[in-house]
Amino acid sequence: MRANGLEIVALSGGVGGAKLAMGLARTLPAKALLVVANVGDDFDHLGLSITPDIDTIIYTIAGLNNWGQGWGRADESWNFMDTIGDLGGEDWFQLGDRDLALHVWRTDQLRRGATLSTLTAAAAERLGVTCTICPSSDLPIRTILETAEGELDFQRYFVRRRAEPEVRAIQYRGAETAVPSPLFMAGLSNPSLRATIICPSNPVLSIGPIIAMDSARKALVDAPAPVIAVSPIKGESAFKGPTARNMRNLGMTPNALGVARYYQPLIDGMVIDHADAALAPAIREMGIAVAMSDISMPEPEDCERLARDVLAIVDDGSIRKRSR
Amino acid sequence: MRANGLEIVALSGGVGGAKLAMGLARTLPAKALLVVANVGDDFDHLGLSITPDIDTIIYTIAGLNNWGQGWGRADESWNFMDTIGDLGGEDWFQLGDRDLALHVWRTDQLRRGATLSTLTAAAAERLGVTCTICPSSDLPIRTILETAEGELDFQRYFVRRRAEPEVRAIQYRGAETAVPSPLFMAGLSNPSLRATIICPSNPVLSIGPIIAMDSARKALVDAPAPVIAVSPIKGESAFKGPTARNMRNLGMTPNALGVARYYQPLIDGMVIDHADAALAPAIREMGIAVAMSDISMPEPEDCERLARDVLAIVDDGSIRKRSR
Repeated sequence: MRANGLEIVALSGGVGGAKLAMGLARTLPAKALLVVANVGDDFDHLGLSITPDIDTIIYTIAGLNNWGQGWGRADESWNFMDTIGDLGGEDWFQLGDRDLALHVWRTDQLRRGATLSTLTAAAAERLGVTCTICPSSDLPIRTILETAEGELDFQRYFVRRRAEPEVRAIQYRGAETAVPSPLFMAGLSNPSLRATIICPSNPVLSIGPIIAMDSARKALVDAPAPVIAVSPIKGESAFKGPTARNMRNLGMTPNALGVARYYQPLIDGMVIDHADAALAPAIREMGIAVAMSDISMPEPEDCERLARDVLAIVDDGSIRKRSR
Repeated sequence: MRANGLEIVALSGGVGGAKLAMGLARTLPAKALLVVANVGDDFDHLGLSITPDIDTIIYTIAGLNNWGQGWGRADESWNFMDTIGDLGGEDWFQLGDRDLALHVWRTDQLRRGATLSTLTAAAAERLGVTCTICPSSDLPIRTILETAEGELDFQRYFVRRRAEPEVRAIQYRGAETAVPSPLFMAGLSNPSLRATIICPSNPVLSIGPIIAMDSARKALVDAPAPVIAVSPIKGESAFKGPTARNMRNLGMTPNALGVARYYQPLIDGMVIDHADAALAPAIREMGIAVAMSDISMPEPEDCERLARDVLAIVDDGSIRKRSR
């Protein structure tokens, strides 16, 4: 029998991470799950504070997301954006009419002094999410890409330039002074916590900004519960986005082994795809336990399947906190 | 033959004023018309700078307005507002998805240092307006209603409380330090100017905030061109909104004579409805020339008809600048 409290902290970026987070939310009791969202993609645009990963996680767990598109809301309209175009405003970042409400509301509330944590919890609850979602930090961390075209903030790299420029280095600006959000910290030290799951998000773009905080890294290592990463790569290709290419450009091996090396100081175990079984010995040699599953999530049912697999791996005790 | 320059300055509030402004815009050459918009209704809402009269004038002249509704845009959608409601945000002031783009764009540009004049001209041009539209001032003037329910800003009085509370007094907050916008001032001193038209807007709510500026009043009186008010009231009822009741509550006579008294220090002539011919002698006794027309504008064609009538009155020379 499980305790009536927090069981799983899940660190997540946007699409891929949000899918597993949704699977976990559908599988676990509401109070058992805390999803910690990357804030490195956040940016100010048209005077609005936009937090894409938080929103993608909310929409995905609430079932409001556009599954086929991979971002934004289903049943969305684009009249705002059309008119921004008519006015000659910046229209390279698509903001749907429904989605926009969240940005306008949040921007207004932030200016009135609310924290991103409070607003994330309120928006999630209002939109029908029953688990808890929090930002990795209430303070700004900004992922800046050093590319052949110069420094680009995340959205200008990812959306405006379609992730095309070669990435030479990544800065997590603000991470040196930011601290993890209260719920994130409280979650990691909660005695009922059974595991921290690093969702299958881009390690360097989506999880990097979270673990760039010294105190987040320390809390993950010090937490009694094991930290388990779910690989975002099967073979040498990510399911979506520039993960593999980013890793290659940064001199990393673009496969589950490269992911394991990146997370090595923090994680106790890793879930890789059956197809990558050959990489398991090398990962185990690094002191990281390995479990296998089908990590692809083409359909919503797959998110639940993978979530159940991951929770079964947590349950079977094969991945224990390692001694350091 | 007319000069190839500015001929008419039109002072306007929202609906009724915008209708005549539209009629003038359809009748005059583009460069011949400057529409000066009331800013007393402007307010900050959901963190956005909203300027309802400017926008109504732009939409009406551009043919984008919702004629039946009397405000906002035709072909509008409300998904933003629905979602603000879902989030528990303030949803008493309706902002359509297309309309919202103007507020977000303007708010962002204002924060970057642009003036309301610049943004009004840019938005009007972008949305297809060929005449010039400017705010009465680039500095804030806020119409505050003293009511039985306490002080209410304009939109809380007009929209949220549906203009129901009895108005005891009106403040034009900021008018003592505001100055007319550059185009407004330049228009009044332009030697080719033939008349200033006070459009049929609510005198105390829509024109009051403009003429509350000392320098605006002085410039209107000093301008060589006559100032001609078009009555917003036929008999004892306005065509829309609380004009007659506002005037009654403030101790004014709620008819064309009451309007004439209110504008008396500033105007040289007045256009009243044929139905109010009996009021003409009393208005003339105040030193104000009177001309008559059918001042109702139920359909777009009526706006042009009244505009042609008003311009014919300007042309026939029956209303001259009076000596003071």
